[in-house]
Amino acid sequence: MNEPLPLVVVFAIYPGVTQLDFTGPYEVLHRLKHAKVITASGKGGLVEAEGGLTFVTERLSDIPRCDVICIPGGAGQVHAMADPAYLDEVRRLGQGARYVTSVCSGSLILGAAGLLRGKRSACHWGWREMLPLFGAEPVAERVVRDGDQFSGGGVTAGIDFALTLAAEIEGESAAKAIQLMLEYAPEPPFDSGAPETADPEVLAAVRKRLDAMLPQRRAAAMKAFESA
Amino acid sequence: MNEPLPLVVVFAIYPGVTQLDFTGPYEVLHRLKHAKVITASGKGGLVEAEGGLTFVTERLSDIPRCDVICIPGGAGQVHAMADPAYLDEVRRLGQGARYVTSVCSGSLILGAAGLLRGKRSACHWGWREMLPLFGAEPVAERVVRDGDQFSGGGVTAGIDFALTLAAEIEGESAAKAIQLMLEYAPEPPFDSGAPETADPEVLAAVRKRLDAMLPQRRAAAMKAFESA
Repeated sequence: MNEPLPLVVVFAIYPGVTQLDFTGPYEVLHRLKHAKVITASGKGGLVEAEGGLTFVTERLSDIPRCDVICIPGGAGQVHAMADPAYLDEVRRLGQGARYVTSVCSGSLILGAAGLLRGKRSACHWGWREMLPLFGAEPVAERVVRDGDQFSGGGVTAGIDFALTLAAEIEGESAAKAIQLMLEYAPEPPFDSGAPETADPEVLAAVRKRLDAMLPQRRAAAMKAFESA
Repeated sequence: MNEPLPLVVVFAIYPGVTQLDFTGPYEVLHRLKHAKVITASGKGGLVEAEGGLTFVTERLSDIPRCDVICIPGGAGQVHAMADPAYLDEVRRLGQGARYVTSVCSGSLILGAAGLLRGKRSACHWGWREMLPLFGAEPVAERVVRDGDQFSGGGVTAGIDFALTLAAEIEGESAAKAIQLMLEYAPEPPFDSGAPETADPEVLAAVRKRLDAMLPQRRAAAMKAFESA
């Protein structure tokens, strides 16, 4: 209840973003009172997510300030981290924001921008171990709060994160009304949403795919952090 | 496992769509083997969802056929139902598809297109009572199957629906791997996702908002159905 209106929320996306990382929170946060939600990218214009869905974006450098900045994750993060202009804009908006937030491996981008030093943060389970590269402490929880920094775990955790943030900003009743509108009473058909509960062979197959990507992601992270 | 490849999935959207109704399922279904996911609308080009997020779409009439058609819901449905060209394309693609599907109040659009006669279907809890207008039987479940028609309840039910459909198409292991990648082990911060569990005052406030929209939606539905 301590936020001046309008509430400017910026999702800072990039090519190859995992779109559900931010479309989930977008659906929650645009329903807050007087929210102005902006989807933006380094260059503006059309941005294609993993899987092909394509979004219209504003240019980050055209946004003077925001109340909430949220960075989603995705395979494209290796390129986002190699783009100093993008990281500069994330840093600038993040330093002026009331809430600095991320979903999934978006926390690694916050880290690369230097915004996670000494902070506790969530991350997708497959990339969580990279957080210490940026001086951040990985936390194996679905929603993590450290002061005014909020982070969600992998992809769908963005919905839990956004409802938590909505309650912080506008109160529990408002967040509960949004949850009811979105009929968020989940019933996953399988118990396969976390490494701890997944079938061993399913976990092994997914882990193998992620491990193949790890060296590239680690190299991108190290390089971004050194030049920050 | 009985689907020829490539698997063409079409989300038939419209201005004022609730974007999470289809972005959730999109994130699941594009991860199926050889999936080709197309976001399309009546006119093609840019389509703005409720809340302002804007998507690039193809034109429905340019798509010769598909394996899966999925219709999302949203406030814009009153206009989609008043657009005979849009309903014609939904009907044409639906009649040739292996799976005819919807999320949230998208089932009402399927109904207006004449594709739900005698079928059991899910819908957003707030609009479910409208299904009989189209000769369909409302079912108060999160994911409903009637033959090769699959439907999801309100908004976030689209993720449960899509994982169910993914298992049908590519098998349980594939669906479980996708669930693990999306870290779909939900932990809603409140127990407010269904009218049965919501606080009475939260339910009353949301119900009041929905009831204000009901006459317009009902009129649009009746008109569409009569001219179908």
